[in-house]
Amino acid sequence: MSSVDMETIVSLCKRRGFIFQSSEIYGGAGGCWDYGPLGAELKRNVKEAWWKAMVHDRDDVVGLDASILMNPQVWVASGHVQQFSDPLVDCKACKSRFRADHLKGDKCPDCGGELTEPRMFNLMFKTFMGPVEDDAAVVYLRPETAQGIFVNFQNVMSTSRKKLPLGIAQVGKSFRNEINTGNFIFRSREFEQMEMEYFVKPGTDDHWFQHWLEQRFNWYVKLGIKKENLRLRPHAKEELAHYAKGCYDVEYLFPMGWSELEGIANRGSYDLEQHSKFSGKDLSVFEEETKERFVPYVIEPSAGVDRSVLAFLLDSYHEEVVEKEKRVVLRLHPALAPIKVAVLPLSRNEKLVPLATEVHASIRGCFMTQYDDSQSIGRRYRRQDEVGTPYCVTVDFQSIEDKQVTIRDRDSLHQIRIPIDTLRATLLAKLGGEDFDVLPPGGSLVTGGKSQLG
Amino acid sequence: MSSVDMETIVSLCKRRGFIFQSSEIYGGAGGCWDYGPLGAELKRNVKEAWWKAMVHDRDDVVGLDASILMNPQVWVASGHVQQFSDPLVDCKACKSRFRADHLKGDKCPDCGGELTEPRMFNLMFKTFMGPVEDDAAVVYLRPETAQGIFVNFQNVMSTSRKKLPLGIAQVGKSFRNEINTGNFIFRSREFEQMEMEYFVKPGTDDHWFQHWLEQRFNWYVKLGIKKENLRLRPHAKEELAHYAKGCYDVEYLFPMGWSELEGIANRGSYDLEQHSKFSGKDLSVFEEETKERFVPYVIEPSAGVDRSVLAFLLDSYHEEVVEKEKRVVLRLHPALAPIKVAVLPLSRNEKLVPLATEVHASIRGCFMTQYDDSQSIGRRYRRQDEVGTPYCVTVDFQSIEDKQVTIRDRDSLHQIRIPIDTLRATLLAKLGGEDFDVLPPGGSLVTGGKSQLG
Repeated sequence: MSSVDMETIVSLCKRRGFIFQSSEIYGGAGGCWDYGPLGAELKRNVKEAWWKAMVHDRDDVVGLDASILMNPQVWVASGHVQQFSDPLVDCKACKSRFRADHLKGDKCPDCGGELTEPRMFNLMFKTFMGPVEDDAAVVYLRPETAQGIFVNFQNVMSTSRKKLPLGIAQVGKSFRNEINTGNFIFRSREFEQMEMEYFVKPGTDDHWFQHWLEQRFNWYVKLGIKKENLRLRPHAKEELAHYAKGCYDVEYLFPMGWSELEGIANRGSYDLEQHSKFSGKDLSVFEEETKERFVPYVIEPSAGVDRSVLAFLLDSYHEEVVEKEKRVVLRLHPALAPIKVAVLPLSRNEKLVPLATEVHASIRGCFMTQYDDSQSIGRRYRRQDEVGTPYCVTVDFQSIEDKQVTIRDRDSLHQIRIPIDTLRATLLAKLGGEDFDVLPPGGSLVTGGKSQLG
Repeated sequence: MSSVDMETIVSLCKRRGFIFQSSEIYGGAGGCWDYGPLGAELKRNVKEAWWKAMVHDRDDVVGLDASILMNPQVWVASGHVQQFSDPLVDCKACKSRFRADHLKGDKCPDCGGELTEPRMFNLMFKTFMGPVEDDAAVVYLRPETAQGIFVNFQNVMSTSRKKLPLGIAQVGKSFRNEINTGNFIFRSREFEQMEMEYFVKPGTDDHWFQHWLEQRFNWYVKLGIKKENLRLRPHAKEELAHYAKGCYDVEYLFPMGWSELEGIANRGSYDLEQHSKFSGKDLSVFEEETKERFVPYVIEPSAGVDRSVLAFLLDSYHEEVVEKEKRVVLRLHPALAPIKVAVLPLSRNEKLVPLATEVHASIRGCFMTQYDDSQSIGRRYRRQDEVGTPYCVTVDFQSIEDKQVTIRDRDSLHQIRIPIDTLRATLLAKLGGEDFDVLPPGGSLVTGGKSQLG
């Protein structure tokens, strides 16, 4: 288990600007959270690492960015209108409302009052498109991003000139009107998903199901989650949807116990068959080599962005004693760290500041950096440790003489002194030369670039 | 004006997988659009270029990622509940509905029938949080991302340890229940914004307003939009909100005429004052140096992601005749191009394919790449031109002998032949060495790296 309790992480997140309660000055918005400056960077990095691993590094996966509001028939076909519900009961005495399947007895847990019969409550948020608020205008906020992929399957197949197996990946917001939210950002009403539907020829689905179980488990490990805090849990038969051939959860040992980070399911041809039936469109594919026509099966790895962010924060949190003082450090993987390099002049001295500014300018285009010249150097190191900054570059008085600076390593606390004119290349090699590289959406990247960067 | 009409771009976007109608197999979802594989990459690149220019490259701006569902009091304080409305009229004869302010006469433009009196229609989508659909449960889908910034101002100020001037930047979805959508992705009900609120000391606001007018105009120019297709239009007095000190639109000459890409406003202290009044929280800041306390003024550059994508597509579109055949080329800035490098074996020959695969593997970690070995090389070049790929790398039979490949430039059609073992560094220098660099969220980047990359 992670060595830290939830309260400590919630407090760190608030204090350092990772995560705030939504609309906090108005008392919040039930079950919604806002990512502050450092949290926004961390969340971006998690999504980017997923996109690189799932889309850019593979020939068999393409991306998609579908809208949140869709034609309401999508949710009839998917079964969400009929079945995406929780049973609710009301207390006749105190009017509290509970999920019937979470209650132990048949009396209100708050006041002991009598409860109503359960009634089904749909978890989709509904709204009205157009000026008239009637049934014909009802649309839903998507409760999952997956259906946006299924309804675009044909368009993507015909325009991307790809063959099966083909994955379509998407990152985006989803909404569920949960009765009970909680455990910080673990369960909220507005959340972000990273979902991929991998379409395969029936008969090859078991092979690809195994492939994705391994890939997805290893993704968390590569990004630094301790193996002993992760497990793959097969769903029991009664947990499985009627159409699913199999499903595993990637679970993390959160402070509240083993809980889902990601579900990986073999959904058979259910989704495409349903959309074919309801839309009247043929969603089968023709395989040229065998002259066969079939409706693909689909393997779905579906991960929660916010849950991943929480797991990365919990798992990277460490407290230790250094020189008789407590040190809090987030040992985040460099690819995830919100700030890669902090530039710290020893003090606000008038000779140091210009040089430190120059040093900062020489590297800032390459990395997400921070310049900080307030308070003692010791306190500034601690602040960077607490938000997971892998490297601190210190400019001291000797730097003015010898044109060298110190690089301090967050984890080992080891310091090296190097010439300023090699700083950029050294940091590029340290940060870009790791096994895990993250591709920039719009630019290029040094990867394993030691041979070129010296 | 861009040299292409809207129909041509819509058709290209559909055919090549940039943009599809949302839920197309169900007949669409009014005014919503889905980004296909290439469109998703292009849109990511536009947002990434904005984030780099606005957040990572500046010391005075930090990021934020606030939720779409907020406490409904936010929209009372902002004025949206009261004032964010359009006047609508119905035709008593044919029941058609129109925006009163868009009508020329007082008879129905469809059938000539009599119209009702105008009534106000709020443009915010509303939904219900929690299981009861009553007034107390009403929440709204945010019609702009800006308010998420204002309500977090205090939290960001106190945790980021920054002083004024301080910008808070955010990219995200917004929703407006427009009566009339249209012009492709220009006006839709679900859209994405890139907004920044730049908080300044009153009295310095005119200076910073000018600063941001220049910065934002130049951002589009740097990313390749022709200057003659851009203009800064000052709002007329009657267009200005009552509290606004000034506002300019950055407009692009779309096929339907000059239209807004971005609004840049000096909003004074209106927003913070309103939220202070409605939340009861003090949102003023104390300036240590002068011992003054004041409510900051704010300069707001607010850009539309989808509109920018459309402008980049239109402006980069060119048709020309090459070797007596029509060539369609998107001259997209390399930072925006969905695919940076295509690797093309001359044919599917059994000797060429392994080498081409090897060449592809040697560069794919660095760039968004595509491998394509189907159809004639000429057709493949045209396909890459049409989606804006800056460089094609061709592997031919001579490559097996001399270990060299050809790099073809999209714009000049110039070809150079270079050794395979210098390909990666050459492409890095070509793509990373430009003036406009895009920082990877999770990694590092070669910028202007010619000195290191040879």
